[in-house]
Amino acid sequence: MEAKELRELARTGKNFTTSGLAKGHVQTNVVILPKAHAFDFTLFCIRNPKPCPIVEVFDPGEFVSSIAEDSDIRTDIPEYKIFRNGIFSELSTDIKNIWRSDFVVFLLGCSFTFENELVKNGIELPYFTNKKNVPMFITSLDTKKAGNFSGKLVVTQRWIKKDKIVKAVQSTSRFPNQHGTPIHIGNSEEIGIKDPYKPDFGDPWIPKNPKDYTPMYWACGVTPQLALEAAKIDISITHSPGKMFVTDLKDEDMAVI
Amino acid sequence: MEAKELRELARTGKNFTTSGLAKGHVQTNVVILPKAHAFDFTLFCIRNPKPCPIVEVFDPGEFVSSIAEDSDIRTDIPEYKIFRNGIFSELSTDIKNIWRSDFVVFLLGCSFTFENELVKNGIELPYFTNKKNVPMFITSLDTKKAGNFSGKLVVTQRWIKKDKIVKAVQSTSRFPNQHGTPIHIGNSEEIGIKDPYKPDFGDPWIPKNPKDYTPMYWACGVTPQLALEAAKIDISITHSPGKMFVTDLKDEDMAVI
Repeated sequence: MEAKELRELARTGKNFTTSGLAKGHVQTNVVILPKAHAFDFTLFCIRNPKPCPIVEVFDPGEFVSSIAEDSDIRTDIPEYKIFRNGIFSELSTDIKNIWRSDFVVFLLGCSFTFENELVKNGIELPYFTNKKNVPMFITSLDTKKAGNFSGKLVVTQRWIKKDKIVKAVQSTSRFPNQHGTPIHIGNSEEIGIKDPYKPDFGDPWIPKNPKDYTPMYWACGVTPQLALEAAKIDISITHSPGKMFVTDLKDEDMAVI
Repeated sequence: MEAKELRELARTGKNFTTSGLAKGHVQTNVVILPKAHAFDFTLFCIRNPKPCPIVEVFDPGEFVSSIAEDSDIRTDIPEYKIFRNGIFSELSTDIKNIWRSDFVVFLLGCSFTFENELVKNGIELPYFTNKKNVPMFITSLDTKKAGNFSGKLVVTQRWIKKDKIVKAVQSTSRFPNQHGTPIHIGNSEEIGIKDPYKPDFGDPWIPKNPKDYTPMYWACGVTPQLALEAAKIDISITHSPGKMFVTDLKDEDMAVI
């Protein structure tokens, strides 16, 4: 299915994960919040570009993306998470009824782009083939604060065969707007991860021969969700994990080299 | 001289061009404007990352840069340009007396970083050695609007020997936050430049054997200055051309590969 068809399917109210669909198209994390908080959140993203790489920011009240033809951000995501005063309130397949003219939409880069690139480069991602989620950990590293937005850095974990570490760095270097290079390689404890087999979110990944693999950690798009909770703003909306906004851009459009 | 010493020299009121000083340190374009316009200007930069690559945005009222130790943006630039209602009003070596607690400071990437890289890669930049300015042209290309910020794209021009075109693309690819890759190679008319020897700003560059050289065009930091004029905001401040804010960052800190 093409990106536009996927958006149209979501618009009918169908609730599905977008991982692996419209392959080669850039999918994005989504954050929507009132204009009163938009400048601070933009600064948070600019100061923390690895977990929060900005792909597009809409004008206040705008719901059509410039990188997704005939799109409507109020309907074109399969599932939305609505937060009130920083606390998760409800899920919905549509936010037309709560849309406000002062809402600002942020599209943030997502790791699907570089995961395609890792696979193309011969790096095994078993959670892909097993229909599981990548393991995610809350680290001891602080993000850079902006206004009321702050919190710890969340990372995704991938166990990489030792002879593929260089390739994994090179592949992800090409996509600075999709989390880019890893933030840590090796000893998990150094970034506050006590047990590398017990993720805070997602599914555990236990390599068969751990001594042949090194854990590599990349900044994760869940980071801004924690910062949103910390900011306790009146209302904010995100996509549901794995149910992303699919744009018309191709992965290679985002590559720097 | 080190970056910090240069800032201290500017702080004493000395008025000098920073080009070629504190070599290897990242120098930045500076825009300062009231918070009421800061979100729109941030969007303008995000939508036009080649002419307006964001290096740092300060908190409102903040005058110390996080990438320049003990700095004070109100005194540490050799010369400031002050605009009122979008019109150039006066020059000053200090803005302490007009500083406001709602001012937001933007540091934007500058081409000095990639010029060092071009020279290292054997590309001749005669204006460097002749103490002239790079030629700059207002193109026919529109920037992407944000709020009241809009205008044409301004570019710098460099005549590159035909066997160095690839190298020039590669070298500047490494620095997406310092204008990055060229926006046009060759036929100047295609981007609205009628006479490639008559720049709108800076000094003309006439290659000795024009048929051995191709003009290459890069997005230029003068673009946001035109957008600032178009926005006609009550007060805004920039650095004077060639008299930049010198940070403690090294050029290589900005390289993506």
